[in-house]
Order: sequence, then structure tokens, then C-alpha cells
Amino acid sequence: MPKANHGKLKIIPLGGLQEIGKNMTLLECGNDILVIDCGVGFPDEDMLGIDLVIPDISYLEKHADRVRAIVLTHGHEDHIGALPFVLQSLQVPVYGTRLTMGILQNKLQEARLPHEPELHTVEAGDKITAGVFKVEFIHVNHSIADACALAIQTPLGMVYHTGDFKLDVSPIDGKMMDLTRIGEIGNAGVLLMMGESTNAERPGFTPSERTVGFSLDKIFSANKDKRIIIATFSSNVHRVQQIVDASAKYGRKVAVLGRSMVNVVGAAAELGYMDVPPGVLIDINDIRRYRPDQLTLVTTGSQGEPMSALYRMAFGEHDKVKLSSQDLVVLSASAIPGNEKLVGRIINALVKNGIRVFNDPNADVHVSGHACKEELKLIHALLKPRYFMPVHGEYRHLYAHKEIAEFMGMPSDHIFVSEIGKVLEITRKEAKFNGTVPAGKVFVDGSGVGDVGSVVLRDRRLLAQDGLIVVVATLNMDDRIVMSGPDIVSRGFVYVKESEELIERAKKIAMAAIERTMERENADWMQIKSSIRDDLSKFFYSKTKRKPMILPVIMNI
Amino acid sequence: MPKANHGKLKIIPLGGLQEIGKNMTLLECGNDILVIDCGVGFPDEDMLGIDLVIPDISYLEKHADRVRAIVLTHGHEDHIGALPFVLQSLQVPVYGTRLTMGILQNKLQEARLPHEPELHTVEAGDKITAGVFKVEFIHVNHSIADACALAIQTPLGMVYHTGDFKLDVSPIDGKMMDLTRIGEIGNAGVLLMMGESTNAERPGFTPSERTVGFSLDKIFSANKDKRIIIATFSSNVHRVQQIVDASAKYGRKVAVLGRSMVNVVGAAAELGYMDVPPGVLIDINDIRRYRPDQLTLVTTGSQGEPMSALYRMAFGEHDKVKLSSQDLVVLSASAIPGNEKLVGRIINALVKNGIRVFNDPNADVHVSGHACKEELKLIHALLKPRYFMPVHGEYRHLYAHKEIAEFMGMPSDHIFVSEIGKVLEITRKEAKFNGTVPAGKVFVDGSGVGDVGSVVLRDRRLLAQDGLIVVVATLNMDDRIVMSGPDIVSRGFVYVKESEELIERAKKIAMAAIERTMERENADWMQIKSSIRDDLSKFFYSKTKRKPMILPVIMNI
Repeated sequence: MPKANHGKLKIIPLGGLQEIGKNMTLLECGNDILVIDCGVGFPDEDMLGIDLVIPDISYLEKHADRVRAIVLTHGHEDHIGALPFVLQSLQVPVYGTRLTMGILQNKLQEARLPHEPELHTVEAGDKITAGVFKVEFIHVNHSIADACALAIQTPLGMVYHTGDFKLDVSPIDGKMMDLTRIGEIGNAGVLLMMGESTNAERPGFTPSERTVGFSLDKIFSANKDKRIIIATFSSNVHRVQQIVDASAKYGRKVAVLGRSMVNVVGAAAELGYMDVPPGVLIDINDIRRYRPDQLTLVTTGSQGEPMSALYRMAFGEHDKVKLSSQDLVVLSASAIPGNEKLVGRIINALVKNGIRVFNDPNADVHVSGHACKEELKLIHALLKPRYFMPVHGEYRHLYAHKEIAEFMGMPSDHIFVSEIGKVLEITRKEAKFNGTVPAGKVFVDGSGVGDVGSVVLRDRRLLAQDGLIVVVATLNMDDRIVMSGPDIVSRGFVYVKESEELIERAKKIAMAAIERTMERENADWMQIKSSIRDDLSKFFYSKTKRKPMILPVIMNI
Repeated sequence: MPKANHGKLKIIPLGGLQEIGKNMTLLECGNDILVIDCGVGFPDEDMLGIDLVIPDISYLEKHADRVRAIVLTHGHEDHIGALPFVLQSLQVPVYGTRLTMGILQNKLQEARLPHEPELHTVEAGDKITAGVFKVEFIHVNHSIADACALAIQTPLGMVYHTGDFKLDVSPIDGKMMDLTRIGEIGNAGVLLMMGESTNAERPGFTPSERTVGFSLDKIFSANKDKRIIIATFSSNVHRVQQIVDASAKYGRKVAVLGRSMVNVVGAAAELGYMDVPPGVLIDINDIRRYRPDQLTLVTTGSQGEPMSALYRMAFGEHDKVKLSSQDLVVLSASAIPGNEKLVGRIINALVKNGIRVFNDPNADVHVSGHACKEELKLIHALLKPRYFMPVHGEYRHLYAHKEIAEFMGMPSDHIFVSEIGKVLEITRKEAKFNGTVPAGKVFVDGSGVGDVGSVVLRDRRLLAQDGLIVVVATLNMDDRIVMSGPDIVSRGFVYVKESEELIERAKKIAMAAIERTMERENADWMQIKSSIRDDLSKFFYSKTKRKPMILPVIMNI
């Protein structure tokens, strides 16, 4: 093996740029590849039937022997969710903080990996070595505990990846983002900063998580006669901590609902990320032993998810909790874009049952976990990087972050707004885009990974739009006679019982198309099928202004 | 015919309550029915392939001989859009103001009605008679010109319907909502008020349309070197007026893009709703004769609609306008819930082309057309109705409006939060709910009205989720032998070329199911089909964790 060339550093994003989610970035130097995060994305509304979207890792699979480690910034799905898939083909050590690895281990238990994964738990402040890379984990604030930025020493200089972060000067666990260490790193010189861009369009600072606590205190204080149900993200351990604190202060017991909430609260309490006074947490089966005004219920479903505990409660389908006007619901989350209508559906159902709802627009019961403009400026000011690549966001967010960097004095040609698969090459002299690697969206549907592609999705969209017509006929091609049929079966097109005449006419048109085509010399199946399709398309469009998918099936005897 | 009983007034909402859109309300007294508005709704995301939703008017069709008139509050789709369908079966006079009727006439030209519609144009202040009802049109402010509330004199007293409205003390056309007349009506006594509830959750007052003009002036003043493209709702004539005014002030010509924008601006200018200085409006084909900084383009597409002029410009598909960094785009509208992602897609495309975008979050370039809490309180204070029914909104909005009425001193049992089809009966003594009439959603899909129902939609959802497997076999049932097949065709399930083995195994399973079932005594087609369906469902789920629709087609020879 020739001596590795350490004169070049490549930055290769495989996810999270010009899209939301599935965050994943590679650093490559000589023979070594380091992977930062490995997240899932969620399907757009036109990706019908798709459960999850994961990054295309064919580049990593091709160079599997050179991948030294996967380092994780924090335990959110869009940063760790693709590991159960990626670890099927990559056997490589994974590093993350305690809560991150705790959540990951839960996920991997269900994954049936072909090999025992090599998982390493680190703490903020720790450094690990992966080939030529030395990675330091740096404590940051975020909407999940134990989140880190990464300071990665490379042969060409320091690369700083912010991870997801905000600056919280009054965090619930008392641990502010490690500005001092970040400042030291900045003073020592940073080659490249990769900075998250989620809130880069928003002015000012993101409020402290603690402001939610003040709002909760007001709500608890003004509603001492009611049972309080609070929905939030299960991973927001500090939010749950504040709910527990408010409950304890006002003499309430706390019961937890929803599988992921039960899992995370259990794990967080066990791992010491939550401080629960003895006797406050009770089992959901014990809530009958308390008056409603002695209870707080913490639940999943803040995004309106149709099978969540809150949804089932709102629609009277929960077997353990029946809501009434004696209850009060707090939606301690904002609707992720695309979920507004689902959340609205739950609010309508609750209000209809006489239940008062506190949510983000009418009460300060949620704060973002991402840095706004002023916080991003602060990081730029501390790190003073030579080069900058905005990450994590749609194009508009990346661009807004570019403008922030320019405002902070960076020359425009040192800022690289990139996309997945595009290679940024950094040498001692310069940084420039140079080539691409395969990258894209791999769809997970059921247990299938990557077997649903654009053709299948196009068919699903067609089927969803105007439904389907199947035309079946059995022919004797030698004698050129129709043995049976044509029969027509439709689904998702018209209500058949009320459209018998339409279908009968369609059968005649199909028969005429078959007979006409069979009379041709050398007529083959393809020609017969295409005649049926053409004639029926025209007929149905003229009658209904719809274009159902037409599927002729010809059998030969 | 017995003497009509005028001792009872019935209020029957057919649309717009506990839903957004398809606003339609009936007043019934004795033998007379009056219809207020006749709007369309837009399909939810689970109504696959549906183009429009219209009210179920079977109650009106049953009592067609008693329907005296349809009165329209204003020309928005959710108030007039169902008329082309409803006038197919109802031959009844329609009343509305000039702009409303102008827009309606355009729509009806494409509708091919079985009879010439009887259309009457009125002005604010006019009164019309329809059976026992006398309807007075009252000028209000809204995001379309010529909008009205309705004061309806009935044998039992005055019914006031707010229509959609806001209070604009500095409206563009100088005509403030007619508070004086509303106050007079209130002083004379109001039996029932029906009040729109769109913004009933929002505190304060909706800002004046004029505030948008100030923002536009700032943008025009600071961007004298750029071409300015502004997208807004075509029906917002006053918004377009302000764009024309700002353009004229800064020496720009205005060209109009998008079919509905061209139509509405043409109609509005012709009918005198816009005041366009001579020479300012130019044809889109003449824009080459001007420098970019001498031009303003007004366009449709503010909701991100994929075929709109703005969309095509953003994605470089417009044949007449190519955008570049010399352009600036103003989205003078807010995204209607559900459209956020579409709007975001356009913003990303624009920013990617180096185009600066001003929109609602980063500049004050849009105001709502609906009254907020304080304006609603003002109307309640002026009208002091005996009974109140909140209309136009999801349950949460109706409920918020109920709370406003209570705040204004109305007894709770005089407030009726209703739903479509529910009959409110008012006598001289009391008001109470009494019975229901048929009401619901009728789906328009292509040229079909009402032929797509829940069965068809369920099939479309199934097909969209996991696609389809068609199993075809030709059998000789007498001899119980398989003549041909089984063949399998799939769409939207797996990519067939990569799944040949899966399909081959499925064929064998289908064959086994057929043979096994045929061996049974008295085996019939239904049994064979159901065996195929059961066995293949299990097989595909075990292999893919998906549940495609399985459609067995058996032919007999």
C-alpha cells in the first residue's frame, strides 16, 4: 500500500444539505474516512407509502475498509436513525455520549445486525482517535440532553462541526454550552467550520428552555382544580424534567403515556439525566387512586400523530385515559412543517370536548432547540474559521447562514454552499469543489430498503390520483379468437355499482380493440395491449375527465 | 296550499361549520328558503385525486320549488365556487354586488348550465325581496372588493350574517365598513347574528390593507435597480391597486402574469374597481422594451401552485420571463395551512438563483382579510343580537368566537355552536336545535360530481400506500384444471425487474392456492379468489412488511 497522501482533506456531505433530515457528512484524508452522524429523513407527501428516507451510502460501502469511525453529535432520529440500516453493511466503531448511545442501543436491539456493533460511550471533553482524525466532543445546548459539537483535528487543520445547538445561558441541567473551549479552539485556528442552519433566517436569540418552565408554572398555578395533560417530544428530557418539577411543586403525581415517552423517561431517569423526587412518578395504571387535580400526564403525540397516546385520548380511543372538561391540555411543541393539519385535528377534537388547550401560539410553552441569527454570529466570532460550509437546512437556510458569515466578515469565496454528494477539497493552499460521489435518497418501505424507486412511486401517484382499470382477456392467438373476456375490474376509479353502464361500454370498446388488432398481420400481444390502453384512455377521459391507470392482461391458450 | 306558518325560522348550515370553505347557509321560514353563499372547499390530503369539494344540496333539491334566491356576500371561491354545480339542478335568482357577479359570470360561462341563470347585480345599500325575506347588502372591508354583510329581515326578526369581513379604517378605496348602518340595525334589534370566526383565536385588530402599501413603498424605494416581481391572490384588487400605485410612483410599468390575474385585473379595471394611471399597465409581450428596473410584474402563484406563473418562473420554465439575480420577488400573501411546503419549494428555487425574497415572516407584505378578536367584539357591541351562531371555521375557531360572545355578555344558552345539517329553530319564545337535514361533502373529480365516495377513496389510499398485485388465471372449472397462468402483474409495489424471484415464488403460491381450493367439493370462484388473496397477503407481508392490494381475476373457459 502506498503511503497515504495527507495533503488533501475532502468534505463529503451525504445528507442534510438542501433538505431537512438524514444528516450525514464524511471527512476523508488519505486512507481514512470519518463519518459524522447517520440520520433518517421523513418522506415528503409525494413519497406515497414510504416509511423513512436514509442516505445513499454506496460510496461508504465501496470504501468500507477505510471507514475508521462514526461519531454522533446527539440522539435525535435525524442524526442516528439510519444506523440500524447502515450498520448492516458497515462494521465500524460508533462513538457518542451516554444518552445518545442509550437511545441507539434501544434502536439496534430491534435491528438484527449481522455482527455485534462496536459501540463506545464518551463524555463531553473526551477525545477519540479514528485514523488520522482526532475528534473532541464539546458540550452544547439543544432540545435533547448530552448533545455535542465536534472539534476534529485533521492533518490539514481543525474542522469544527456545530452539530445541532443553541446557546442556553440558563439551561435546566446547569451546563451551558462550552463557550470557553470553543473560544480556545477558535484562538488555536480553525480550518473549516460546518454550521447548522435550521434557524438561520430567524433574528435574535432562541429563548432559554427555562422560559417554558415559567409558563408551565403559570398554567399549573392557575389551574389547580384540573388534571393537566402535557404533550411534548419524548427526547426532550429537560422539558420533561420541568414538567416533573412543576408537578412536584404543586403536589401532583406524574404518569407517563406513549411507548417512546415511557422508554425515554425510564432511560433518562436511570442514566441520571433526570432528577425525579421520590414518589412523584407513578404508573399509568395507578392514576385511579388520585383525584384528577392531583395528576399530570406526560404524553407523546405533540405532532398530531394518528396512533399516538394524545390522539387516542383526544378521540376517546385510549383505554386508560378518558378526557373531559375537567382536563387541560398543553401542547409543549410547535408543529413541524407539514404537521399543522394533524395538530389542528387534535386541537379541534379537544376543544369540542370542552377541554382548554394551551399551545405555542397562545402560550409560551415551547422554545426551539436551534440557534437563531445572533447565536450563529457568536459561534462565527469565537471560531473565526478560514472556510465555512453551512449545513442542515433547505437551500434558503443554508443561504441565510452564508449571509450571516459574510456579515461577520468572511470573504464570499471562503464560504461553500454545497449539496449532497458534492466534494469539497481542501489543501494547504485553497479550498474548492472537486467532483461528486453517489448520493441521494434511499426509501425504506416496510422491510424493503431501496427496492422502491421512482418508477414504483410514479405508479403509486397515478394509482392514487384516478385509480385503476384492469382489462383481462384470454385469447387463442393461433386461431385469433377471444376465448374469454374481456373482463374489467376497477379500483379507486368509480363506484362500480353506480357505473355499470360505463363499464359495459368499456368492455365493448376493449373487445373491439382486441378484434381490430388481431386482424392485423403479425399482431402481437404488445400491440393488442396498447390498442386497449389507447382506446380505453380516450373513452374514460371523455366520459369522466379522469385518467385511471389502464392495465391490460392478456392470457394465451 | 295551506297558509304558510311564519312562526318558525330555521337556520340550516350546509357548509363552513367545523370545516374550512364551502360556505353555505339556508334560512327557511314557512314556504320560503333563502340561500346565503354557495362555496367550494378544497380537498384534504387524504382525499386522493379529488379536485373540489362542494356541499351536499339534496335538501335544496328536494325543496327546489321553495328556494326563492341565492344571495352572495362576496366573490371568493369558498363563497361562490359551487354555483356552477348547484345551478345545474336549481333554477333560482342569484344576487350579488358588481364585482362578485362579474367573477361569477366568468365561471358560469364554462359551466354549460341547462338554463340561462337569472343573475341580479346589486350595490351595497340595496334591498332585495325573496319570499318573506328582505335582504339588505351592507358594505364591509375584506381582501376582495365589493364584499357585503347581509341584514335579512324575517317574519321573526332581523338576522345579520357578517360574511367575511375586517374593519379597515383606512381602506384603499376609501370606503370603510358601514359601521353606522350596522349600528342602526343593532339599535332596531337583531334576532340572530351569524358571525365569521376565521381569526377568532387571534388577539387585537387586523392591520389595515394600507400597511402593505407602506412596506411596498420601502421595498420599491430601496431596490430601484431591480425588476420587482410580486405574487398575490388575484382577487385582492386593492393589493394589486397598491402595487400599481407604488410602480407608478417609482416610474415603473406593470405587466400582469397568470390567467386568473390577467382576468381579474382586466375585469376590475373595466368595472372601475381599480384606478390605473394611463400607460402604466403594459402587455407581458412588451416587457422587452423596458429595462428590468423599469418593470413590476404582478403574478399568481403566491401559494406555490405547481402550474402557476411564479412557479414556472422560479423553475426556469416560463416562456416569457427568465429570472436572475437582477430580480426581486415579493410574496404578498401568507401560506394557507397545508401549502407551506409548496411555498417553501418556490422560495428555495428563487434563493438558489440568487434572487432576494420578501415574504410574510421577513417583511410586512401581507395582512389578513378577516376580523380579529377586537373587531369581532365591536360587531357584537354594535349589533347586540339576541342569539348568536358562530360560522366559518373549524371547531376551535367557532368555540373561540363563542367565548368572545360570552365575554361581551351574551348568555351561553343563547349561543349556538352548530354543524352542517343541524337545524336551529327560532320561534318568538326561544331558539333551539331541532333535527337535521342531509349535509356533507360531495367530491368533484374530473367531470364527475359525487361519483367518488368513501369506497373509491379507501381504494386509492390502499393503492397509494403499497401498490397493487393482479393475479390472473384462466380455469376450466368443469374439469378443474388451470388452462393458463396464474400470471402476476404488479404496479407500485416493488420494482419488478429487481424482484423476479419474489414474483416467481408468488406465482407458485397462487398456483398452489388455486389447485388446493379447486380440489374442494363445490369450490367456487369466490373461494379460489379468497385463497389466493389470503396466501399472497401472508407471503408478501412476510417478505416485505407491506400490504399491497391483491386483485385476483379468474377467467373460466
